[in-house]
Amino acid sequence: MKQYFKGIGKVKYEGPKSKNPLAFKHYNADEVVGKKSMENHLRFSVVYWHTMKGGGTDPFGPTSVYDRPWDSSSDPMQVAEDTMRAAFEFIGKLGAPFWAFHDRDIAPEGDSLKESNERLDRIVKLAKGLQKDTGVKLLWGTSNCFSNARFSHGAGTNPDPHVFAWAAAQIKKAMECTVALGGANYVFWGGREGYSSLLNTDLKHEQEQMARLLHMAVAYKKKLGFKGTLLIEPKPKEPTTHQYDYDAATVLGFLQSHDLLDEFSLNIEANHATLAGHTFEHDLTVASAAGKLGSIDANRGNLLLGWDTDQFPADLYSATHAMMVILKQGGLRPGGVNFDAKVRRGSVDVEDLFHAHIGGMDAFARGLKVAQKIIDDGVVGDFVKLRYAGWRKGIGAKVMKGQATFDDMEQFIHKNGEAVPTSGREEWLENVINGYL
Amino acid sequence: MKQYFKGIGKVKYEGPKSKNPLAFKHYNADEVVGKKSMENHLRFSVVYWHTMKGGGTDPFGPTSVYDRPWDSSSDPMQVAEDTMRAAFEFIGKLGAPFWAFHDRDIAPEGDSLKESNERLDRIVKLAKGLQKDTGVKLLWGTSNCFSNARFSHGAGTNPDPHVFAWAAAQIKKAMECTVALGGANYVFWGGREGYSSLLNTDLKHEQEQMARLLHMAVAYKKKLGFKGTLLIEPKPKEPTTHQYDYDAATVLGFLQSHDLLDEFSLNIEANHATLAGHTFEHDLTVASAAGKLGSIDANRGNLLLGWDTDQFPADLYSATHAMMVILKQGGLRPGGVNFDAKVRRGSVDVEDLFHAHIGGMDAFARGLKVAQKIIDDGVVGDFVKLRYAGWRKGIGAKVMKGQATFDDMEQFIHKNGEAVPTSGREEWLENVINGYL
Amino acid sequence: MKQYFKGIGKVKYEGPKSKNPLAFKHYNADEVVGKKSMENHLRFSVVYWHTMKGGGTDPFGPTSVYDRPWDSSSDPMQVAEDTMRAAFEFIGKLGAPFWAFHDRDIAPEGDSLKESNERLDRIVKLAKGLQKDTGVKLLWGTSNCFSNARFSHGAGTNPDPHVFAWAAAQIKKAMECTVALGGANYVFWGGREGYSSLLNTDLKHEQEQMARLLHMAVAYKKKLGFKGTLLIEPKPKEPTTHQYDYDAATVLGFLQSHDLLDEFSLNIEANHATLAGHTFEHDLTVASAAGKLGSIDANRGNLLLGWDTDQFPADLYSATHAMMVILKQGGLRPGGVNFDAKVRRGSVDVEDLFHAHIGGMDAFARGLKVAQKIIDDGVVGDFVKLRYAGWRKGIGAKVMKGQATFDDMEQFIHKNGEAVPTSGREEWLENVINGYL
Amino acid sequence: MKQYFKGIGKVKYEGPKSKNPLAFKHYNADEVVGKKSMENHLRFSVVYWHTMKGGGTDPFGPTSVYDRPWDSSSDPMQVAEDTMRAAFEFIGKLGAPFWAFHDRDIAPEGDSLKESNERLDRIVKLAKGLQKDTGVKLLWGTSNCFSNARFSHGAGTNPDPHVFAWAAAQIKKAMECTVALGGANYVFWGGREGYSSLLNTDLKHEQEQMARLLHMAVAYKKKLGFKGTLLIEPKPKEPTTHQYDYDAATVLGFLQSHDLLDEFSLNIEANHATLAGHTFEHDLTVASAAGKLGSIDANRGNLLLGWDTDQFPADLYSATHAMMVILKQGGLRPGGVNFDAKVRRGSVDVEDLFHAHIGGMDAFARGLKVAQKIIDDGVVGDFVKLRYAGWRKGIGAKVMKGQATFDDMEQFIHKNGEAVPTSGREEWLENVINGYL
Repeated sequence: MKQYFKGIGKVKYEGPKSKNPLAFKHYNADEVVGKKSMENHLRFSVVYWHTMKGGGTDPFGPTSVYDRPWDSSSDPMQVAEDTMRAAFEFIGKLGAPFWAFHDRDIAPEGDSLKESNERLDRIVKLAKGLQKDTGVKLLWGTSNCFSNARFSHGAGTNPDPHVFAWAAAQIKKAMECTVALGGANYVFWGGREGYSSLLNTDLKHEQEQMARLLHMAVAYKKKLGFKGTLLIEPKPKEPTTHQYDYDAATVLGFLQSHDLLDEFSLNIEANHATLAGHTFEHDLTVASAAGKLGSIDANRGNLLLGWDTDQFPADLYSATHAMMVILKQGGLRPGGVNFDAKVRRGSVDVEDLFHAHIGGMDAFARGLKVAQKIIDDGVVGDFVKLRYAGWRKGIGAKVMKGQATFDDMEQFIHKNGEAVPTSGREEWLENVINGYL
Repeated sequence: MKQYFKGIGKVKYEGPKSKNPLAFKHYNADEVVGKKSMENHLRFSVVYWHTMKGGGTDPFGPTSVYDRPWDSSSDPMQVAEDTMRAAFEFIGKLGAPFWAFHDRDIAPEGDSLKESNERLDRIVKLAKGLQKDTGVKLLWGTSNCFSNARFSHGAGTNPDPHVFAWAAAQIKKAMECTVALGGANYVFWGGREGYSSLLNTDLKHEQEQMARLLHMAVAYKKKLGFKGTLLIEPKPKEPTTHQYDYDAATVLGFLQSHDLLDEFSLNIEANHATLAGHTFEHDLTVASAAGKLGSIDANRGNLLLGWDTDQFPADLYSATHAMMVILKQGGLRPGGVNFDAKVRRGSVDVEDLFHAHIGGMDAFARGLKVAQKIIDDGVVGDFVKLRYAGWRKGIGAKVMKGQATFDDMEQFIHKNGEAVPTSGREEWLENVINGYL
Repeated sequence: MKQYFKGIGKVKYEGPKSKNPLAFKHYNADEVVGKKSMENHLRFSVVYWHTMKGGGTDPFGPTSVYDRPWDSSSDPMQVAEDTMRAAFEFIGKLGAPFWAFHDRDIAPEGDSLKESNERLDRIVKLAKGLQKDTGVKLLWGTSNCFSNARFSHGAGTNPDPHVFAWAAAQIKKAMECTVALGGANYVFWGGREGYSSLLNTDLKHEQEQMARLLHMAVAYKKKLGFKGTLLIEPKPKEPTTHQYDYDAATVLGFLQSHDLLDEFSLNIEANHATLAGHTFEHDLTVASAAGKLGSIDANRGNLLLGWDTDQFPADLYSATHAMMVILKQGGLRPGGVNFDAKVRRGSVDVEDLFHAHIGGMDAFARGLKVAQKIIDDGVVGDFVKLRYAGWRKGIGAKVMKGQATFDDMEQFIHKNGEAVPTSGREEWLENVINGYL
Repeated sequence: MKQYFKGIGKVKYEGPKSKNPLAFKHYNADEVVGKKSMENHLRFSVVYWHTMKGGGTDPFGPTSVYDRPWDSSSDPMQVAEDTMRAAFEFIGKLGAPFWAFHDRDIAPEGDSLKESNERLDRIVKLAKGLQKDTGVKLLWGTSNCFSNARFSHGAGTNPDPHVFAWAAAQIKKAMECTVALGGANYVFWGGREGYSSLLNTDLKHEQEQMARLLHMAVAYKKKLGFKGTLLIEPKPKEPTTHQYDYDAATVLGFLQSHDLLDEFSLNIEANHATLAGHTFEHDLTVASAAGKLGSIDANRGNLLLGWDTDQFPADLYSATHAMMVILKQGGLRPGGVNFDAKVRRGSVDVEDLFHAHIGGMDAFARGLKVAQKIIDDGVVGDFVKLRYAGWRKGIGAKVMKGQATFDDMEQFIHKNGEAVPTSGREEWLENVINGYL
C-alpha cells in the first residue's frame, strides 16, 4: 500500500526530556490522570479539512502552496480516495483516536445532488473500511453549507427557500454518512448563517428559518435512530458580517426560545470565542454552566488579529484553563478535543502537520495533568468555595431559596451596616497557576 | 431665583438654514412626522450623571476640570439642591421633556443607609416640585451599585450576601424614588455585575444570584403598584473584564432561562452595543425582534477605542438606522431617547452642554424624518419583502408551518436542481440611503 | 465589437433628485468646485483586480460566485483579452478617467518569467490601444508579489534571496509596463512584506532587504526615465501577522532611516488605516503633514471586523474628511481617488459593479463639494487658526523659533501663574459639520 | 520607626518548590545567569504611582477603595512623607533595587509652581536619605503633565503656549529632582500628547511644538550635566483619542525627522504595545533593531479589552520573549524592568501588593532563565541564522552591499528559474519554546 508520509513512523511517547521533534513529550495515551487514561480524557480528533485538504491559502493567496502526494491525480475521485488513505495513515501514525469531516471535504461535489451523494457513498464505504483497519473512529461529521456559490446569502437562513432545501438535503445526507461511520456526534456549523448587511435582511425571519431547519434535523435524527449528540458551534463573524450563533450565551438563548435546548449541546472553539470578545475558558464555562458543553474545537487565535487564524493550540495557559472546565464537568464524552487548526501558509512540508499535531496534543496533555493537579491540591477550589460561603447560610441561603424580599434586605442593612471589604486575590491566584506550570 | 446658565435662553427651532449654534435646525417638537409629533416620537431625556455631575474626568485625570456654578457650596446637600435646580433650568431651556438619574447622582451617600435614604427623600421632594413647575417628567430612575467601594466585586453578583443586601436595599429605595417622581420606567444597569477574573469566580452561582435579585425587584414592583417598565441595559465590559449582561441576545437568554422574560424589556445603548462587537442597529433589531426594545441610550462610541467614550450621537447614519428600527415597532413609549452621553474633557464651558444636546436632538430629529421617509417611500422595505417572498408560498410556506421534513427537502432538490443566484444589492441599498441624507 | 455590459449605457449626471440608480446624483465631471472641475479634483480610478477579476471569494468560499461574460473562454490569454476589453467598456460607460492594475491581473503568469513577460507585452499592447480609443489613462501599475506560492515568506523581505530576485524581476517588468502605458504613478504594496512569527524572523535584516529593493527601484526608475511618482501603500496586517508598512508614520520613518524619503510618496487606503487603529483622515493628515500624501485608495472597512473588507466608500463623513485634507494640500495630482473596493459576495450581477462605483463617485463628489464649502466658509478653519494664535507671538513665537529655554519657561510661569481654561468645542464642531451634510 | 507592612518580613528566595506565597520561587538576586547576576540582568523597579498612590479607581469607581495606613493623615505633606517612608519599607522588604516616580506622586501640587517646587524639594530630601539608608536607587523620574486640568488639551502639544510653558517648567523641576536623586534615566511619557478630535487640531504644529520641548529638554540635560538616558515611552491612545507617540516605529520616525534621534531611547511598555496592535516583543524588537531599546515597563494588558489594564506581568511566554530580545542586545542598563502595573480593584490588602510584585519578579526571573537557555542551546538561533544564510553569499551578498540592479535580478531568474519552497517551521518552533517552559 502506498505510503504518503514516508520516513515518518508511529509517533511515540518519549517523555519531557526527549529532543525528538517527532515524539510526544507529554501525551502518553495510556497514562492515567485522575481516574481515566489520557486517551479517554482527551479523545483527540484530526480534522480532514485543514489537515488533508488545506492548501495554505488566504485572501491574498487563493491557490494552494502545498505539494501533497495525495493530491496528484487528475481524477477528482481518485484524489478523494488517495486523500482518505493518506488521512488514515496520518491519524494512525499520530495515534489520535478520532477524526472529523465535512461532506464536501471527503468527496467532491457532483453536478447534481444525486451524483454528490453517490460520491459520498463511495468514499464513506472506503472510510468505513479504513476505520475498521485502524481502529480510528469518527468524532463527528458535518455538512459544508457555506462554500458553494448557492450559499452566498446563507444556507438555513437564506432568503430563498430553494437554497434552504439544498442545505437541508445536504445535511440529511451528511447525517446519514455520519451514522454509517458510527459517528459519536453530528455538528452544525453555520458558516454563512448570518448577514452581510442589515439593510436587506429580515433577522427575525432568518432565525425562525434556522429553528425550522434544526427541528427537522432533530426529527431526522430520531428517524435514523442516531444516538450521538447534535452539536452547534458558535462563531460571531467571518465570512459574514454577523453570524447568528455569535457565542455560547447567544446560542443557548436561541435554542431555548425555539424549544430546541433539550436536543443540542455546544461545540466551543477557542478562536471563535476570542473573535466574540471572550476568552476560550469563558465560553467553555458558559456552556458548561448550562450543562451544554459537548465538545471542543481546540485551536488558537491571535488576539491582535481579527480573523480566524485557526492556529494549533500551543498555549499552555489556555490548555490548562480549558481542561479545568472540562474536568470539573466530568469530561467531554461523547465529544472530544478536535484540532480544528491548520499549519501556517509557510509550513509547507508534511512534517509540519506532525509537528503541529504533536504540539497540540502535548499542550493539552500538559493542560490535563496541570488541571488535575490544581483540582487535586484544592488550593484554588477551596479559595473559591470559601469566597461564596456566605450563600450557604443565613441571609444568603434565604435569598438563594427565593424566600427573601427587598424589605428583608433593607432591614439587614439597617441592622448590619457596612460590609467588610475582602480581597479577590487575583494576583496570588495567577502566581499559584504559574507555580503548576 | 438663581440662574445657572446666564445669557442662554430657551433653545428654539430655527430651521436648517439657521447659523445660530444655540438653536435647533431640525428638532421641532410639535412638528408631526408620520402620525405623531417629534416630541412624542423621540421622548428626549437628559441624564443627571454626565450633564450635571460629570467632571470631564478620566483614568489619567481623576479630578474635575469643569468649574460649574452649581457646585460651589461646601455643603454637599446644598450642592445637591443647587444642582437639581440647575438641572431643571437646563432641561427647561433645552426643551427636553424627560430626565433620568441614579440615586447617588441626586443626593450624596450618607454614613448609613438611613441617612442616605433621608437625603434622597429631601432631594426627591425638591425634584417633584421642579417637575411640577416645569412639566419635565422622569423617564427613568436607577441605582448606582458600582461606585461605592463595597461593590468592588459586584452588587447582585457579589460573592458576599452582605453586599448583595446593600444592592437590594439601594434598589428598593431607588424604585420608591422613581415611583414618587412618576417615573415611566426603572432601569437595571449592572455596572459591576460581572467578573474581573474567572479564577476566583463561580459564574453560574453569580448569575443565579442576579436572577434572585431581579425576582425580588419584580415582587417589589408589584407591591409598590409601579406600572412602568423594568429595563435591563446590556454592556459587555468596563469596568469589569466581563459583564454578564453582554448584549441584547445574552440578556434575553438570561431572562428566559430564569423565568424573567415577561417582566423586563431592554434599554439598548449604542456604545455598549459596539463594545460587544455589534452595531447599534444590530442590538436594537435583536431586542425589537423579541418584542423587547423598551428604550434607548443614545450616544456614540469611537469604534477604534475600546472603552465607553459616551460621545453625543452626532452620526446621522446611526440615528437614521436606529429610528428605522424604532418606527417599525411603533415607537418606544414608555421608553425614550435618553442622552447617556457626556461632553469631552476639553469642552469645559456650560455652553458646550447645550451644543452637545442640540446636536444630538437635531441628529435624531433628522434620523426620524429620514427614517419615516424611507418607510413611506417603501423602496427599501419592498425590496426586503420581495427577497423573502418565497417563504409565503409552496415549499417555503410548508417549512415555516413546521410541516416539512428532510425527505421533502431532498425530493425538492432532486426535482428542481440548482437555485437561481440573486443579488443582495447591498451597494445599491447604501446608495439609496445616501439619497435620503 | 462584443458588448459585455448589455443594456447599460453611459452613466450620466442627472442631479440629486434623480431616482435612476444608474445615474450620478452628485458627480458631474465638468462642474467646477473651487477652481477645478470635479474630474480634475477627484481623478477617479477603477481597479482591475476587484472589478474585473474579483470572484466574491473569501476564506470560506474559495471559488468564484460570479458568472462574468468576459470569463467564459477556456484559453487563459483569450480570457485576458476579453477581460481587458470588458474593462475599458466598463470604465468608459462609468466615465472614470483612470484605471489601475497588478501585473498578474491583466495577464496570467506563465511557466517562466520569460513567458509571463511575453504575455504582459501582448496584453499591454492591447491595453494601450484601448487607452487611445477611450481616452482612459493609467493612474498606476503595481506588481503582485504576494499570491504566488513562492512569496509565502515575503517578496522583498523573503529570507531567500532567490525569491527576492523574483520580486525584483517582476517589479522591473511591471514598471516597464506602467511606463509603456503612460502611467502617472507606480505603487509598491507589500502584500506579504512582514512576518508570520517573530520566532523565525530577523526583522532588522528583512527591513534592510526591503530598503535595498526600493533603492534598486529608484535606480531603475531613473534608467527608464519614468517621471511618475513612486508610491508606498501602508497596511498593518493581513495576510501576514504583521506588515512592516504598518501605517503612514511607520512608512515615513522607514523611508527616512533608509535614505529613501525624497523618492517616495504614500498611497493611503481607508481600510488599511482603520486596521492600524487610525481613522482614514488621520493617516491622510499624517502623510499630508509630511508633504507625502500622493494618492488614495478609496474604500471603507467595517470597524467591527478585523479584516480588509474593501467595501465601496459610501460614507459621506469619511469622504468629506478625506477631501478636506486633500483640498488643503492642493489636490492629489499626479495621484487620484482609486476605488480599491469590491462588491459584496452576494452582489452577483454586473449591475452591482455600476451601483458600487456610482455610489462611491457620488459620495466623493458630495465630500468634495461639502469640503470646499467648509473651507470657503472658514468657520472651522478660523476656529482652528485662532486656537493656535498664541504660537505666533510672544513666548509662543520664541519657542517655535527655537530660542526659548526651560529657564524661560519657568520664569514665565512664575510670572504668569495659571493658564485660562478654554473649550475645544468638539461638540459644536460636529454640529457644524452636520450642518453641511 | 513606624511599620506600614506589619507582619511581612523581607521576601526571600525559597526555590520552585516553596508554597510560601510571600517567597520568591525563581528570583534569586545573586544567582548568575549567563555572565550576570539576576539582579544585574533585571534591575527591577517599583513604581510609586500605582503601588503607593493607587486607589483601585476606575471610570465607574472614582474614589479609592484601598485603606492604606500611610494615607491617614489630614495633612497632605504628612501623607507625602508617610507614603515615602512606606514606599522604602515596601521596596526594601521586596528586595527590588530601584524605584520610579512622577513629580506629583511624591509631593502634592501646591497653589503655585513655587510652592509645588518647594514641596518637591522637601520630599526629595527625605527620599535621598531613604535611598541612602536602604541602598535602593532611582531608575527614573518623570513629570505628570496630564492629570491637572490645565493639561486637558495636552502639555507640550497644547494649543496654548502658556500651558506648554507649564509643562516645560514642570519637566525642568522633575529633571532636577531626578538628578538630585541620582536617577539613571529620565522618562517622557506624554499622557495627553495627542488629540481628542482632528476637527480642532493642527497635527503638524503640535508635533513641531513637541519637538521644541524635547530640544529644550536636551539642552537642559546638558546644562544640568545629567549623564542618564532620556527615554520616550510610546502609547497609542487613552486618555486621548490618538497619541502622537503611537508605538516604537512612530516615535523613532518622529525623533529622526526632528533631529532628536541621537538624544533619546525608548521605554517600551507591554500594555501600550498591545493597545497599538503589536505584541510586546514586536515593539521591543523594533526598538532594539534601531539600537534604541533603553528600558521596559513590565506589565500586561488584556488583549480582549481596549484600555490600559496595567496588570502585573504574570505571563511566562511574554516574559520569555521579552528577555530573549533584551539578552540579545546585551541588557537594558542603565534601564531596567519597571513594574508599571497595579493590583486589581478587588485586591484591597497590602499583601496583594507583595503577591503582585513577587509574581512579576518570578515571571521575569523564569523568563530570563528560559531565554538564556534558549540562546545557549542555539536551536532557535541556529535555525534563524540558517534561514537567512543566502544573504551572506552570491546574489544575496551583492544585494546587501547595494551593488545589484533590477537587471541583475531579472537575469538571475531567467537563469535559475523557480525558487525552492522551504518551511518556516513555526509550529515546531512553538513546540521548542514550550519544551523550555
